[in-house]
Amino acid sequence: MTHDQQGTERLNFFSDGVFAILITILVLELHPPHETTFHALAALWPSGLSYAVSYLFLAIVWMNHHHLLKYAKRPAIRLVWANFAHLFTVSLVPFATAWLASSGLAGTAVAAYAFVFALVNLTYMALCAETVDRQAGSSVPTEARQFMRRRSLVTLGLFLFAVGAGYLYPVAGMAVIAICLVLYVQPGSARDAIDDAKPSSPPSALP
Amino acid sequence: MTHDQQGTERLNFFSDGVFAILITILVLELHPPHETTFHALAALWPSGLSYAVSYLFLAIVWMNHHHLLKYAKRPAIRLVWANFAHLFTVSLVPFATAWLASSGLAGTAVAAYAFVFALVNLTYMALCAETVDRQAGSSVPTEARQFMRRRSLVTLGLFLFAVGAGYLYPVAGMAVIAICLVLYVQPGSARDAIDDAKPSSPPSALP
Amino acid sequence: MTHDQQGTERLNFFSDGVFAILITILVLELHPPHETTFHALAALWPSGLSYAVSYLFLAIVWMNHHHLLKYAKRPAIRLVWANFAHLFTVSLVPFATAWLASSGLAGTAVAAYAFVFALVNLTYMALCAETVDRQAGSSVPTEARQFMRRRSLVTLGLFLFAVGAGYLYPVAGMAVIAICLVLYVQPGSARDAIDDAKPSSPPSALP
Amino acid sequence: MTHDQQGTERLNFFSDGVFAILITILVLELHPPHETTFHALAALWPSGLSYAVSYLFLAIVWMNHHHLLKYAKRPAIRLVWANFAHLFTVSLVPFATAWLASSGLAGTAVAAYAFVFALVNLTYMALCAETVDRQAGSSVPTEARQFMRRRSLVTLGLFLFAVGAGYLYPVAGMAVIAICLVLYVQPGSARDAIDDAKPSSPPSALP
Repeated sequence: MTHDQQGTERLNFFSDGVFAILITILVLELHPPHETTFHALAALWPSGLSYAVSYLFLAIVWMNHHHLLKYAKRPAIRLVWANFAHLFTVSLVPFATAWLASSGLAGTAVAAYAFVFALVNLTYMALCAETVDRQAGSSVPTEARQFMRRRSLVTLGLFLFAVGAGYLYPVAGMAVIAICLVLYVQPGSARDAIDDAKPSSPPSALP
Repeated sequence: MTHDQQGTERLNFFSDGVFAILITILVLELHPPHETTFHALAALWPSGLSYAVSYLFLAIVWMNHHHLLKYAKRPAIRLVWANFAHLFTVSLVPFATAWLASSGLAGTAVAAYAFVFALVNLTYMALCAETVDRQAGSSVPTEARQFMRRRSLVTLGLFLFAVGAGYLYPVAGMAVIAICLVLYVQPGSARDAIDDAKPSSPPSALP
Repeated sequence: MTHDQQGTERLNFFSDGVFAILITILVLELHPPHETTFHALAALWPSGLSYAVSYLFLAIVWMNHHHLLKYAKRPAIRLVWANFAHLFTVSLVPFATAWLASSGLAGTAVAAYAFVFALVNLTYMALCAETVDRQAGSSVPTEARQFMRRRSLVTLGLFLFAVGAGYLYPVAGMAVIAICLVLYVQPGSARDAIDDAKPSSPPSALP
Repeated sequence: MTHDQQGTERLNFFSDGVFAILITILVLELHPPHETTFHALAALWPSGLSYAVSYLFLAIVWMNHHHLLKYAKRPAIRLVWANFAHLFTVSLVPFATAWLASSGLAGTAVAAYAFVFALVNLTYMALCAETVDRQAGSSVPTEARQFMRRRSLVTLGLFLFAVGAGYLYPVAGMAVIAICLVLYVQPGSARDAIDDAKPSSPPSALP
């Protein structure tokens, strides 16, 4: 293992720690009801739903992050900062989730939630630029890179659409977000994100 | 270390982080009493008991998880999702524990607690299917696999029984759960979970 | 790296995660004052003192734990359970610290605090027994092992003494605990805990 | 990998865990507003600003810490204690951030915030002394070391100045802190902190 590889390893390690904490911090927002009835438990469905969607989102972000960082050959300073920017936007997810849950899926909170997803998508695109475009160089075919960039723009557009839609029609906004996530769970794109023995396919570009 | 092994390593690493956080988040639910008397401390026994049982449960789940993932040869996408599903159900344990503790072992909360244990058991069976059945292939003897599956069904049945029993008779429900756990602490099954130099024995199937 | 070494590595890793979380969870108990004056900040001295003492204690426990696990040759099931028991007692430290801080160093809370320290010492002795006595075998000289056991009993005695002393005279109890810790910070014993290239010296036995 | 390298690795690992937790604990202080309006969200700007500044600060501290520990050849006991002292001061950042946020950037809280930054700087200088001066020996040129020490003193002076300035003029204090951080984000110094293949340049000395 060279010195550079060790540096990239450490970056991955630190990021993994942050992801592991964020995905478990989410559950701290699930406060049990004061009354001990199934009815009181069922009334928590907005919390439960926000928690499940955020968990799914963070799982997908983690998979994409790992797939992407396979291309990083050395922990260049620009890459490190792009990674910190990405982790910063990801760390806003529990806050947005908590607001969404406590508001009972109000329009304003759905819009803020979708906006955080858009920010995560945006910083992921910056991380892509630093990793694939700068470092991986010719190892990623041009068409694949174009496909990836186009897909990133589509998801970014959908999340931004969900900001407006969610503000006016909360349920519709959540539906757009959910559809976006479910699409990415499908093997077609997600398979590339992890299952590859040789990291030659382009990273999927959800966020 | 091949590329695949590294991928499995990372999956283990991330899961370890989540387990470490969940087992310590439990203690955040142990709020010290407002009065400074031993009497006030002793009144916390439902919290203390729930905490101890959940800690023991998570310790066993961690041991089984590690034993199981030794069989995983590559981080296939289905395995990664089964693992995220398993971690999702495990992450509900602090929530269920907090409700149990704050309710003072009420029937409804004991039922919910047992239900979360059943869910963990269920996702563990899915993880087993992805790991042993799909990947380990012929390295695990058929009888061992059958024994394992049968045992999984027995514990799942016991946890589901504890849901009903606990709703009607909370103490009985907790007793069923406790018996289930104590059985698994015995070397006979737990030994296989960790102590094996060669990962040839079937993973124990508690959850 | 053999399969056994990998197993011990993972045990260390998981324990490291738990230690890192516990030492940072402590700070969550440091709630900033409601008023924004230095006077209000200064009034938090019992919290500050408990936090500093607990931090120092956890640092020492971490160093001893690492020194000890160098002797572990394979992750035997008894060793894994002794480790979980040790981590369980360590995880009670934030709870005891929070009670101590919120009570303003009341006698009852000091006694409970010292009792948790004694429990940590006790489980550390069990971990020692599983590691040095069972596994390291002849690699640790008999006199060293006897010295270690005697020292463990002395610190255990001091912590138990602090339980009684602290209940009657809180400040005296804290002083006994503090002396105990300061003694262990001295290079003489602590040096052995980390600085050794060859793990041939007996682990220090604070907890 | 020699025994000593493994020991340093573990120290890094534990520190990484603590940094990852602290940087995510920050977000726990971001409590969503009770009302669900953008106006209520905008009113949280002091929290948001403190969170962003603290996040940036911890990112820089993490980069410096990593750069510095490349020089550590063995986990000497003095180095381990200097590292625990450094992590202790870093762990006060969430507390100071929470006070700053809840006070709405009051003078007293800005002063305390700047004081914690100064403490982090101070313990970093101690860590530098243990790592570069004692262990790296002749591998770091004398001029580089002098430059580093001078820069450390400058930043320490600026943070201490921000304590006084912030007490009288909160906004001015925050501006001094922000300028200090922005300077360090510039490639000139930060590049050395990570980007080096050969760890031959002196560690930057922000904190």
